[in-house]
Amino acid sequence: MKLASYRHADQERFGAVVDDTVIDLTDASGHPTLASFVGSADYAKRDALIAQGTAVPLSEVTLLPVIPRPEKIVCSVRNYMDHHQEAVAAGLKRELSEFPPVFLRVWRSQVAHGQPIIRPKASESLDWEGELAVIIGRGGRDIPAESAWDHVAGYSCYNDASVRDFQFHAKQIAAGKNFESTGGFGPWMVTGDEIAPGQVLKLETRLNDEVVQSGDTGQMIFDVPQLIAYASTIFTLSPGDVIVTGTPAGVGFSRKPPRFMKPGDVVEVEIEGIGVLRNPVAQQA
Amino acid sequence: MKLASYRHADQERFGAVVDDTVIDLTDASGHPTLASFVGSADYAKRDALIAQGTAVPLSEVTLLPVIPRPEKIVCSVRNYMDHHQEAVAAGLKRELSEFPPVFLRVWRSQVAHGQPIIRPKASESLDWEGELAVIIGRGGRDIPAESAWDHVAGYSCYNDASVRDFQFHAKQIAAGKNFESTGGFGPWMVTGDEIAPGQVLKLETRLNDEVVQSGDTGQMIFDVPQLIAYASTIFTLSPGDVIVTGTPAGVGFSRKPPRFMKPGDVVEVEIEGIGVLRNPVAQQA
Repeated sequence: MKLASYRHADQERFGAVVDDTVIDLTDASGHPTLASFVGSADYAKRDALIAQGTAVPLSEVTLLPVIPRPEKIVCSVRNYMDHHQEAVAAGLKRELSEFPPVFLRVWRSQVAHGQPIIRPKASESLDWEGELAVIIGRGGRDIPAESAWDHVAGYSCYNDASVRDFQFHAKQIAAGKNFESTGGFGPWMVTGDEIAPGQVLKLETRLNDEVVQSGDTGQMIFDVPQLIAYASTIFTLSPGDVIVTGTPAGVGFSRKPPRFMKPGDVVEVEIEGIGVLRNPVAQQA
Repeated sequence: MKLASYRHADQERFGAVVDDTVIDLTDASGHPTLASFVGSADYAKRDALIAQGTAVPLSEVTLLPVIPRPEKIVCSVRNYMDHHQEAVAAGLKRELSEFPPVFLRVWRSQVAHGQPIIRPKASESLDWEGELAVIIGRGGRDIPAESAWDHVAGYSCYNDASVRDFQFHAKQIAAGKNFESTGGFGPWMVTGDEIAPGQVLKLETRLNDEVVQSGDTGQMIFDVPQLIAYASTIFTLSPGDVIVTGTPAGVGFSRKPPRFMKPGDVVEVEIEGIGVLRNPVAQQA
Protein backbone atom coordinates (compact mmCIF):
# COMPACT_ATOMS: atom_id res chain seq x y z
CA MET A 1 0.00 0.00 0.00
CA LYS A 2 1.12 3.53 -0.79
CA LEU A 3 0.41 6.19 1.85
CA ALA A 4 0.74 9.91 1.31
CA SER A 5 0.20 13.17 3.15
CA TYR A 6 -1.61 15.83 1.16
CA ARG A 7 -3.66 19.00 1.24
CA HIS A 8 -7.23 18.93 -0.02
CA ALA A 9 -9.95 21.56 0.40
CA ASP A 10 -7.58 23.55 2.63
CA GLN A 11 -7.12 20.66 5.04
CA GLU A 12 -4.04 18.58 5.74
CA ARG A 13 -4.87 14.90 5.31
CA PHE A 14 -3.32 11.52 4.66
CA GLY A 15 -4.56 8.53 2.75
CA ALA A 16 -3.83 5.62 0.45
CA VAL A 17 -2.85 6.18 -3.16
CA VAL A 18 -4.69 3.69 -5.39
CA ASP A 19 -4.22 4.14 -9.13
CA ASP A 20 -5.12 7.77 -9.89
CA THR A 21 -7.01 8.38 -6.66
CA VAL A 22 -6.23 8.94 -3.03
CA ILE A 23 -8.50 7.38 -0.43
CA ASP A 24 -8.71 9.51 2.69
CA LEU A 25 -7.74 7.78 5.93
CA THR A 26 -7.79 10.82 8.21
CA ASP A 27 -11.47 10.60 9.04
CA ALA A 28 -11.63 6.80 8.83
CA SER A 29 -8.73 6.30 11.26
CA GLY A 30 -9.32 9.27 13.54
CA HIS A 31 -5.61 10.12 13.42
CA PRO A 32 -4.66 13.72 12.58
CA THR A 33 -1.42 12.83 10.78
CA LEU A 34 0.27 9.95 9.02
CA ALA A 35 2.97 10.06 11.74
CA SER A 36 0.33 9.40 14.38
CA PHE A 37 -1.27 6.65 12.28
CA VAL A 38 1.89 4.64 11.57
CA GLY A 39 2.72 4.57 15.28
CA SER A 40 -0.68 3.27 16.32
CA ALA A 41 -2.39 -0.11 16.53
CA ASP A 42 -4.74 1.15 13.79
CA TYR A 43 -1.87 0.93 11.30
CA ALA A 44 -2.31 -2.85 11.16
CA LYS A 45 -5.96 -2.34 10.24
CA ARG A 46 -5.23 -0.18 7.19
CA ASP A 47 -6.77 -2.57 4.70
CA ALA A 48 -10.09 -2.48 6.54
CA LEU A 49 -9.94 1.30 6.99
CA ILE A 50 -9.50 1.89 3.26
CA ALA A 51 -12.96 0.43 2.68
CA GLN A 52 -14.41 3.28 4.79
CA GLY A 53 -12.47 6.10 3.09
CA THR A 54 -13.63 8.54 0.42
CA ALA A 55 -11.65 8.62 -2.82
CA VAL A 56 -10.67 11.84 -4.59
CA PRO A 57 -8.66 12.14 -7.80
CA LEU A 58 -4.93 12.40 -7.12
CA SER A 59 -4.89 15.38 -9.49
CA GLU A 60 -7.12 17.34 -7.09
CA VAL A 61 -4.79 17.13 -4.09
CA THR A 62 -1.44 18.77 -3.34
CA LEU A 63 1.04 16.24 -2.05
CA LEU A 64 3.00 17.16 1.09
CA PRO A 65 6.29 15.64 2.24
CA VAL A 66 5.38 12.06 3.22
CA ILE A 67 5.72 13.02 6.88
CA PRO A 68 5.35 16.82 6.76
CA ARG A 69 6.80 17.57 10.19
CA PRO A 70 8.79 14.62 11.56
CA GLU A 71 9.90 15.04 15.14
CA LYS A 72 13.35 13.94 14.01
CA ILE A 73 15.05 13.44 10.65
CA VAL A 74 18.24 11.48 11.19
CA CYS A 75 20.48 11.36 8.13
CA SER A 76 23.49 9.23 7.45
CA VAL A 77 26.52 10.65 5.68
CA ARG A 78 29.00 8.65 3.56
CA ASN A 79 27.05 5.44 4.05
CA TYR A 80 27.68 3.95 0.59
CA MET A 81 31.18 2.60 -0.06
CA ASP A 82 31.37 4.02 -3.59
CA HIS A 83 30.26 7.49 -2.39
CA HIS A 84 32.81 7.35 0.43
CA GLN A 85 35.50 6.59 -2.14
CA GLU A 86 34.48 9.41 -4.47
CA ALA A 87 34.54 11.87 -1.56
CA VAL A 88 38.08 10.80 -0.68
CA ALA A 89 39.09 11.03 -4.35
CA ALA A 90 37.65 14.57 -4.42
CA GLY A 91 40.04 15.54 -1.64
CA LEU A 92 37.96 15.13 1.53
CA LYS A 93 39.97 13.67 4.39
CA ARG A 94 37.57 11.00 5.62
CA GLU A 95 38.08 7.59 7.15
CA LEU A 96 35.60 4.78 7.60
CA SER A 97 34.41 4.93 11.17
CA GLU A 98 33.29 2.40 13.71
CA PHE A 99 29.95 4.19 14.16
CA PRO A 100 27.50 5.60 11.60
CA PRO A 101 28.12 9.29 10.94
CA VAL A 102 24.75 10.98 11.43
CA PHE A 103 23.40 14.51 11.24
CA LEU A 104 19.97 16.09 11.64
CA ARG A 105 17.64 17.84 9.26
CA VAL A 106 14.78 20.08 10.40
CA TRP A 107 11.34 19.49 8.89
CA ARG A 108 11.38 22.95 7.38
CA SER A 109 14.12 21.80 5.02
CA GLN A 110 11.74 19.29 3.38
CA VAL A 111 9.79 19.66 0.17
CA ALA A 112 7.10 17.46 -1.37
CA HIS A 113 7.10 15.55 -4.65
CA GLY A 114 6.30 17.98 -7.44
CA GLN A 115 7.22 21.07 -5.45
CA PRO A 116 10.39 22.96 -6.35
CA ILE A 117 13.68 22.36 -4.59
CA ILE A 118 14.86 25.90 -3.89
CA ARG A 119 18.37 27.07 -4.73
CA PRO A 120 19.10 29.72 -2.10
CA LYS A 121 20.32 33.21 -2.81
CA ALA A 122 23.37 32.48 -0.67
CA SER A 123 24.94 29.78 -2.85
CA GLU A 124 25.05 28.15 -6.27
CA SER A 125 26.47 24.83 -5.04
CA LEU A 126 23.15 22.96 -4.73
CA ASP A 127 23.83 19.25 -5.16
CA TRP A 128 21.64 16.12 -5.40
CA GLU A 129 21.73 13.01 -3.19
CA GLY A 130 19.22 10.24 -3.94
CA GLU A 131 18.52 8.19 -0.81
CA LEU A 132 16.22 5.59 0.70
CA ALA A 133 14.12 7.00 3.55
CA VAL A 134 12.87 4.73 6.33
CA ILE A 135 9.76 5.84 8.22
CA ILE A 136 9.59 4.72 11.85
CA GLY A 137 6.31 3.24 13.05
CA ARG A 138 6.49 2.01 16.64
CA GLY A 139 8.95 4.17 18.56
CA GLY A 140 11.45 3.15 21.18
CA ARG A 141 14.80 3.72 22.88
CA ASP A 142 17.85 1.47 22.81
CA ILE A 143 16.35 -0.71 20.08
CA PRO A 144 18.63 -3.67 19.35
CA ALA A 145 19.52 -4.14 15.68
CA GLU A 146 18.00 -7.61 15.91
CA SER A 147 14.49 -6.21 16.43
CA ALA A 148 14.87 -2.97 14.47
CA TRP A 149 12.78 -4.11 11.50
CA ASP A 150 9.77 -4.30 13.86
CA HIS A 151 9.96 -0.50 14.15
CA VAL A 152 9.87 0.22 10.41
CA ALA A 153 6.52 1.39 9.04
CA GLY A 154 7.66 1.81 5.44
CA TYR A 155 9.97 3.35 2.86
CA SER A 156 10.14 6.35 0.60
CA CYS A 157 12.50 8.26 -1.68
CA TYR A 158 14.52 11.20 -0.35
CA ASN A 159 16.64 13.77 -2.12
CA ASP A 160 19.06 14.90 0.59
CA ALA A 161 19.90 17.96 -1.50
CA SER A 162 22.91 19.78 -0.10
CA VAL A 163 24.38 23.24 -0.35
CA ARG A 164 28.01 22.21 -0.55
CA ASP A 165 29.84 25.39 0.35
CA PHE A 166 27.75 25.78 3.53
CA GLN A 167 28.21 22.07 4.26
CA PHE A 168 31.95 22.61 4.43
CA HIS A 169 31.75 25.84 6.46
CA ALA A 170 33.56 25.29 9.70
CA LYS A 171 33.47 21.50 9.27
CA GLN A 172 29.88 21.27 10.54
CA ILE A 173 27.62 19.60 8.01
CA ALA A 174 24.27 20.84 9.40
CA ALA A 175 24.26 24.26 7.72
CA GLY A 176 24.52 22.90 4.18
CA LYS A 177 21.98 20.16 4.82
CA ASN A 178 19.17 22.31 6.16
CA PHE A 179 18.37 24.99 3.61
CA GLU A 180 14.66 25.59 3.42
CA SER A 181 12.80 23.52 0.82
CA THR A 182 15.76 21.43 -0.32
CA GLY A 183 15.03 17.92 0.98
CA GLY A 184 12.67 16.17 -1.45
CA PHE A 185 10.58 13.50 0.30
CA GLY A 186 8.03 11.43 -1.57
CA PRO A 187 5.98 10.90 -3.53
CA TRP A 188 4.54 8.49 -0.94
CA MET A 189 5.65 5.79 1.45
CA VAL A 190 5.30 2.12 0.59
CA THR A 191 4.23 0.08 3.59
CA GLY A 192 6.79 -2.31 5.04
CA ASP A 193 4.86 -5.44 4.11
CA GLU A 194 5.67 -4.82 0.43
CA ILE A 195 9.46 -4.84 0.84
CA ALA A 196 11.25 -7.66 2.65
CA PRO A 197 13.66 -6.67 5.45
CA GLY A 198 17.03 -6.00 3.85
CA GLN A 199 15.74 -6.47 0.31
CA VAL A 200 18.20 -4.85 -2.10
CA LEU A 201 16.53 -2.06 -4.08
CA LYS A 202 17.88 -0.33 -7.17
CA LEU A 203 18.29 3.43 -6.69
CA GLU A 204 18.73 5.91 -9.51
CA THR A 205 18.99 9.70 -9.57
CA ARG A 206 18.37 11.56 -12.81
CA LEU A 207 19.06 15.19 -13.63
CA ASN A 208 17.09 16.35 -16.67
CA ASP A 209 16.62 12.68 -17.65
CA GLU A 210 20.37 11.93 -17.47
CA VAL A 211 21.29 9.21 -15.00
CA VAL A 212 23.71 10.74 -12.47
CA GLN A 213 23.54 8.15 -9.68
CA SER A 214 22.92 4.45 -10.12
CA GLY A 215 23.34 2.07 -7.25
CA ASP A 216 21.46 -0.20 -4.92
CA THR A 217 20.73 -0.28 -1.22
CA GLY A 218 22.95 -3.35 -0.80
CA GLN A 219 25.96 -1.01 -0.87
CA MET A 220 25.19 0.59 2.50
CA ILE A 221 28.06 0.50 4.98
CA PHE A 222 25.71 0.62 8.00
CA ASP A 223 22.42 -1.13 7.21
CA VAL A 224 18.94 -0.02 8.30
CA PRO A 225 18.92 -2.01 11.59
CA GLN A 226 22.33 -0.61 12.56
CA LEU A 227 21.16 2.95 11.84
CA ILE A 228 18.01 2.47 13.91
CA ALA A 229 19.96 0.92 16.78
CA TYR A 230 22.49 3.76 16.79
CA ALA A 231 19.90 6.55 16.59
CA SER A 232 17.81 5.00 19.35
CA THR A 233 20.87 4.87 21.61
CA ILE A 234 20.82 8.67 21.48
CA PHE A 235 17.10 9.37 21.81
CA THR A 236 13.70 7.76 21.80
CA LEU A 237 12.56 7.24 18.23
CA SER A 238 9.00 8.44 17.71
CA PRO A 239 6.32 7.46 15.19
CA GLY A 240 6.95 9.26 11.93
CA ASP A 241 10.65 9.85 12.57
CA VAL A 242 12.62 9.49 9.38
CA ILE A 243 15.96 7.73 8.92
CA VAL A 244 17.65 8.83 5.70
CA THR A 245 20.17 6.18 4.82
CA GLY A 246 22.87 7.79 2.68
CA THR A 247 23.61 8.16 -1.01
CA PRO A 248 25.60 6.17 -3.59
CA ALA A 249 28.34 7.62 -5.79
CA GLY A 250 27.61 10.16 -8.48
CA VAL A 251 26.96 13.42 -6.63
CA GLY A 252 27.87 16.67 -8.33
CA PHE A 253 30.58 18.11 -6.10
CA SER A 254 32.97 15.20 -6.65
CA ARG A 255 32.85 15.56 -10.44
CA LYS A 256 35.57 17.29 -12.40
CA PRO A 257 34.51 19.97 -12.90
CA PRO A 258 31.87 19.99 -10.13
CA ARG A 259 28.28 20.06 -11.36
CA PHE A 260 25.36 21.57 -9.48
CA MET A 261 21.60 22.00 -9.91
CA LYS A 262 20.25 25.25 -11.26
CA PRO A 263 16.82 26.80 -11.73
CA GLY A 264 14.93 25.08 -14.52
CA ASP A 265 16.47 21.67 -13.87
CA VAL A 266 14.32 18.67 -12.97
CA VAL A 267 15.74 16.09 -10.56
CA GLU A 268 14.31 12.63 -10.00
CA VAL A 269 15.07 9.92 -7.44
CA GLU A 270 13.68 6.51 -8.35
CA ILE A 271 13.81 3.54 -6.01
CA GLU A 272 12.68 0.09 -7.11
CA GLY A 273 9.36 -0.91 -5.59
CA ILE A 274 8.68 2.60 -4.27
CA GLY A 275 8.34 5.10 -7.12
CA VAL A 276 9.78 8.29 -8.56
CA LEU A 277 10.32 11.47 -6.55
CA ARG A 278 10.43 14.36 -9.02
CA ASN A 279 11.26 17.98 -8.22
CA PRO A 280 11.88 20.98 -10.42
CA VAL A 281 14.58 23.35 -9.21
CA ALA A 282 13.75 27.03 -8.65
CA GLN A 283 15.59 30.06 -7.39
CA GLN A 284 14.83 31.53 -3.96
CA ALA A 285 12.66 34.60 -4.50
CA MET B 1 9.82 40.11 33.17
CA LYS B 2 10.54 36.40 33.63
CA LEU B 3 8.47 34.00 31.52
CA ALA B 4 8.35 30.24 32.04
CA SER B 5 6.63 27.18 30.62
CA TYR B 6 5.28 24.79 33.19
CA ARG B 7 2.84 22.02 33.97
CA HIS B 8 0.04 22.63 36.44
CA ALA B 9 -3.05 20.51 37.12
CA ASP B 10 -2.02 18.23 34.25
CA GLN B 11 -2.00 21.07 31.75
CA GLU B 12 0.91 22.64 29.91
CA ARG B 13 0.91 26.39 30.50
CA PHE B 14 3.13 29.44 30.44
CA GLY B 15 3.21 32.53 32.57
CA ALA B 16 5.20 35.20 34.34
CA VAL B 17 7.31 34.38 37.37
CA VAL B 18 6.86 37.07 40.04
CA ASP B 19 8.58 36.42 43.37
CA ASP B 20 7.41 32.98 44.52
CA THR B 21 4.41 32.79 42.22
CA VAL B 22 3.72 32.22 38.58
CA ILE B 23 0.95 34.21 36.94
CA ASP B 24 -0.75 32.25 34.18
CA LEU B 25 -0.73 33.90 30.76
CA THR B 26 -2.12 30.98 28.74
CA ASP B 27 -5.77 31.86 29.31
CA ALA B 28 -5.21 35.62 29.45
CA SER B 29 -3.35 35.69 26.11
CA GLY B 30 -5.22 32.94 24.29
CA HIS B 31 -1.91 31.48 23.08
CA PRO B 32 -1.34 27.75 23.61
CA THR B 33 2.42 28.02 24.09
CA LEU B 34 5.12 30.52 25.02
CA ALA B 35 6.57 30.07 21.51
CA SER B 36 3.31 31.23 20.00
CA PHE B 37 3.07 34.14 22.45
CA VAL B 38 6.56 35.56 21.89
CA GLY B 39 5.97 35.61 18.14
CA SER B 40 2.68 37.50 18.36
CA ALA B 41 1.62 41.12 18.68
CA ASP B 42 0.25 40.19 22.12
CA TYR B 43 3.82 39.85 23.40
CA ALA B 44 4.10 43.63 23.55
CA LYS B 45 0.99 43.72 25.78
CA ARG B 46 2.42 41.38 28.41
CA ASP B 47 2.30 43.91 31.22
CA ALA B 48 -1.42 44.43 30.73
CA LEU B 49 -2.06 40.67 30.36
CA ILE B 50 -0.41 39.92 33.70
CA ALA B 51 -3.12 41.91 35.43
CA GLN B 52 -5.68 39.41 34.10
CA GLY B 53 -3.77 36.25 35.07
CA THR B 54 -4.25 33.95 38.03
CA ALA B 55 -1.27 33.43 40.34
CA VAL B 56 -0.26 30.06 41.73
CA PRO B 57 2.69 29.31 44.00
CA LEU B 58 5.82 28.46 42.01
CA SER B 59 6.21 25.45 44.29
CA GLU B 60 2.98 23.96 42.92
CA VAL B 61 4.04 23.88 39.29
CA THR B 62 6.56 21.74 37.42
CA LEU B 63 8.79 23.85 35.23
CA LEU B 64 9.30 22.73 31.64
CA PRO B 65 12.15 23.70 29.32
CA VAL B 66 11.55 27.41 28.61
CA ILE B 67 10.38 26.53 25.12
CA PRO B 68 9.45 22.86 25.49
CA ARG B 69 9.41 21.96 21.78
CA PRO B 70 11.20 24.59 19.70
CA GLU B 71 10.85 24.09 15.97
CA LYS B 72 14.61 24.56 15.74
CA ILE B 73 17.47 24.67 18.23
CA VAL B 74 20.54 26.11 16.49
CA CYS B 75 23.71 25.74 18.53
CA SER B 76 27.08 27.31 18.01
CA VAL B 77 30.26 25.35 18.59
CA ARG B 78 33.63 26.82 19.61
CA ASN B 79 32.20 30.33 19.74
CA TYR B 80 34.29 31.62 22.67
CA MET B 81 37.95 32.33 21.96
CA ASP B 82 39.18 30.78 25.22
CA HIS B 83 37.16 27.59 24.62
CA HIS B 84 38.47 27.38 21.06
CA GLN B 85 42.01 27.62 22.45
CA GLU B 86 41.44 24.93 25.09
CA ALA B 87 40.03 22.56 22.44
CA VAL B 88 43.11 23.07 20.29
CA ALA B 89 45.33 22.56 23.33
CA ALA B 90 43.48 19.31 24.05
CA GLY B 91 44.48 18.02 20.63
CA LEU B 92 41.49 18.90 18.41
CA LYS B 93 42.55 20.10 14.99
CA ARG B 94 40.35 23.16 14.64
CA GLU B 95 40.82 26.48 12.91
CA LEU B 96 38.84 29.66 13.29
CA SER B 97 36.43 29.84 10.41
CA GLU B 98 34.91 32.62 8.38
CA PHE B 99 31.40 31.43 9.24
CA PRO B 100 29.87 30.35 12.55
CA PRO B 101 30.04 26.58 13.05
CA VAL B 102 26.49 25.50 13.90
CA PHE B 103 24.72 22.25 14.66
CA LEU B 104 21.17 21.28 15.60
CA ARG B 105 19.61 19.86 18.72
CA VAL B 106 16.20 18.16 18.76
CA TRP B 107 13.71 19.27 21.41
CA ARG B 108 13.71 15.81 22.90
CA SER B 109 17.27 16.42 24.07
CA GLN B 110 16.10 19.23 26.38
CA VAL B 111 15.42 19.10 30.11
CA ALA B 112 13.89 21.66 32.45
CA HIS B 113 15.41 23.44 35.43
CA GLY B 114 15.28 21.10 38.40
CA GLN B 115 14.89 17.97 36.31
CA PRO B 116 17.80 15.55 36.04
CA ILE B 117 20.27 15.64 33.19
CA ILE B 118 20.50 11.99 32.23
CA ARG B 119 23.83 10.20 31.77
CA PRO B 120 23.09 7.55 29.15
CA LYS B 121 23.89 3.88 29.46
CA ALA B 122 26.03 4.17 26.34
CA SER B 123 28.70 6.50 27.72
CA GLU B 124 30.34 7.97 30.80
CA SER B 125 31.74 11.05 29.04
CA LEU B 126 28.89 13.45 29.91
CA ASP B 127 30.31 16.98 29.94
CA TRP B 128 28.92 20.42 30.84
CA GLU B 129 28.71 23.55 28.66
CA GLY B 130 27.14 26.67 30.19
CA GLU B 131 25.71 28.92 27.46
CA LEU B 132 23.48 31.91 26.81
CA ALA B 133 20.28 30.95 24.96
CA VAL B 134 18.51 33.50 22.78
CA ILE B 135 14.79 32.99 22.17
CA ILE B 136 13.51 34.21 18.81
CA GLY B 137 10.31 36.27 18.85
CA ARG B 138 9.35 37.54 15.42
CA GLY B 139 10.55 35.07 12.79
CA GLY B 140 12.08 35.75 9.40
CA ARG B 141 14.42 34.69 6.62
CA ASP B 142 17.63 36.39 5.50
CA ILE B 143 17.61 38.69 8.52
CA PRO B 144 20.46 41.22 8.27
CA ALA B 145 22.68 41.41 11.35
CA GLU B 146 21.78 45.11 11.59
CA SER B 147 18.14 44.33 12.43
CA ALA B 148 18.66 40.99 14.21
CA TRP B 149 18.02 42.37 17.70
CA ASP B 150 14.43 43.14 16.61
CA HIS B 151 13.87 39.38 16.38
CA VAL B 152 15.03 38.57 19.92
CA ALA B 153 12.25 37.92 22.45
CA GLY B 154 14.53 37.20 25.40
CA TYR B 155 17.33 35.23 27.01
CA SER B 156 17.82 32.17 29.14
CA CYS B 157 20.50 29.81 30.47
CA TYR B 158 21.36 26.62 28.58
CA ASN B 159 23.52 23.69 29.54
CA ASP B 160 24.56 22.25 26.18
CA ALA B 161 25.59 19.03 27.92
CA SER B 162 27.51 16.78 25.59
CA VAL B 163 28.38 13.11 25.39
CA ARG B 164 31.95 13.51 24.23
CA ASP B 165 32.77 10.10 22.81
CA PHE B 166 29.64 10.17 20.63
CA GLN B 167 30.41 13.77 19.68
CA PHE B 168 33.69 12.61 18.19
CA HIS B 169 32.23 9.52 16.47
CA ALA B 170 32.80 9.87 12.77
CA LYS B 171 33.50 13.62 13.06
CA GLN B 172 29.79 14.49 13.18
CA ILE B 173 28.91 16.43 16.31
CA ALA B 174 25.13 15.82 16.28
CA ALA B 175 25.17 12.39 17.94
CA GLY B 176 26.91 13.56 21.11
CA LYS B 177 24.81 16.72 21.34
CA ASN B 178 21.39 15.11 21.20
CA PHE B 179 21.14 12.54 23.94
CA GLU B 180 17.71 12.55 25.49
CA SER B 181 17.30 14.81 28.52
CA THR B 182 20.77 16.33 28.45
CA GLY B 183 20.22 19.94 27.39
CA GLY B 184 19.25 21.99 30.43
CA PHE B 185 17.14 25.03 29.49
CA GLY B 186 15.82 27.42 32.10
CA PRO B 187 14.75 28.24 34.66
CA TRP B 188 12.90 30.94 32.68
CA MET B 189 13.49 33.49 29.97
CA VAL B 190 14.09 37.13 30.78
CA THR B 191 12.36 39.43 28.31
CA GLY B 192 14.56 41.39 25.95
CA ASP B 193 13.67 44.78 27.42
CA GLU B 194 15.66 43.92 30.59
CA ILE B 195 18.98 43.31 28.81
CA ALA B 196 20.42 45.84 26.37
CA PRO B 197 21.44 44.55 22.92
CA GLY B 198 25.00 43.28 23.20
CA GLN B 199 25.18 43.85 26.96
CA VAL B 200 28.05 41.79 28.37
CA LEU B 201 26.78 39.24 30.91
CA LYS B 202 28.85 37.21 33.35
CA LEU B 203 28.43 33.46 32.86
CA GLU B 204 29.44 30.85 35.42
CA THR B 205 29.08 27.07 35.48
CA ARG B 206 29.37 25.24 38.79
CA LEU B 207 29.70 21.52 39.41
CA ASN B 208 28.81 20.62 43.00
CA ASP B 209 29.35 24.28 43.96
CA GLU B 210 32.84 24.38 42.41
CA VAL B 211 33.25 26.99 39.68
CA VAL B 212 34.28 25.16 36.50
CA GLN B 213 33.54 27.83 33.89
CA SER B 214 33.75 31.56 34.42
CA GLY B 215 33.48 33.94 31.51
CA ASP B 216 31.30 36.55 29.95
CA THR B 217 29.29 36.87 26.77
CA GLY B 218 31.67 39.52 25.46
CA GLN B 219 34.08 36.72 24.52
CA MET B 220 31.89 35.39 21.71
CA ILE B 221 33.62 35.09 18.35
CA PHE B 222 30.34 35.45 16.41
CA ASP B 223 27.91 37.68 18.27
CA VAL B 224 24.14 37.22 18.57
CA PRO B 225 23.25 39.28 15.46
CA GLN B 226 25.80 37.37 13.36
CA LEU B 227 24.41 34.03 14.55
CA ILE B 228 20.83 35.10 13.77
CA ALA B 229 21.84 36.39 10.34
CA TYR B 230 23.69 33.16 9.51
CA ALA B 231 20.91 30.84 10.72
CA SER B 232 18.24 32.80 8.86
CA THR B 233 20.25 32.50 5.64
CA ILE B 234 19.61 28.75 5.89
CA PHE B 235 15.97 28.69 6.95
CA THR B 236 13.13 30.86 8.16
CA LEU B 237 13.47 31.44 11.88
CA SER B 238 10.19 30.84 13.71
CA PRO B 239 8.83 32.18 16.98
CA GLY B 240 10.28 30.18 19.85
CA ASP B 241 13.34 29.00 17.93
CA VAL B 242 16.38 28.94 20.16
CA ILE B 243 19.89 30.09 19.32
CA VAL B 244 22.43 28.63 21.74
CA THR B 245 25.50 30.78 21.56
CA GLY B 246 28.49 28.69 22.62
CA THR B 247 30.45 28.07 25.80
CA PRO B 248 33.53 29.63 27.40
CA ALA B 249 36.62 27.67 28.49
CA GLY B 250 36.50 25.19 31.34
CA VAL B 251 34.67 22.16 29.97
CA GLY B 252 35.56 18.74 31.33
CA PHE B 253 37.01 16.94 28.34
CA SER B 254 39.87 19.39 27.86
CA ARG B 255 41.08 18.95 31.45
CA LYS B 256 44.00 16.72 32.36
CA PRO B 257 42.78 14.22 33.28
CA PRO B 258 39.34 14.75 31.66
CA ARG B 259 36.50 15.25 34.10
CA PHE B 260 32.89 14.30 33.48
CA MET B 261 29.52 14.50 35.25
CA LYS B 262 28.24 11.48 37.12
CA PRO B 263 25.00 10.52 38.83
CA GLY B 264 24.57 12.45 42.09
CA ASP B 265 26.33 15.56 40.79
CA VAL B 266 24.54 18.90 40.64
CA VAL B 267 25.39 21.28 37.81
CA GLU B 268 24.46 24.96 37.68
CA VAL B 269 24.68 27.57 34.94
CA GLU B 270 24.31 31.14 36.18
CA ILE B 271 24.06 34.13 33.87
CA GLU B 272 24.00 37.68 35.19
CA GLY B 273 20.57 39.25 34.95
CA ILE B 274 18.87 35.96 34.09
CA GLY B 275 19.19 33.46 36.93
CA VAL B 276 20.51 30.02 37.86
CA LEU B 277 19.73 26.85 35.89
CA ARG B 278 20.24 23.92 38.25
CA ASN B 279 20.10 20.25 37.31
CA PRO B 280 20.98 17.12 39.23
CA VAL B 281 22.61 14.36 37.20
CA ALA B 282 21.03 10.90 37.11
CA GLN B 283 21.75 7.64 35.36
CA GLN B 284 19.55 6.43 32.49
CA ALA B 285 17.24 3.74 33.87
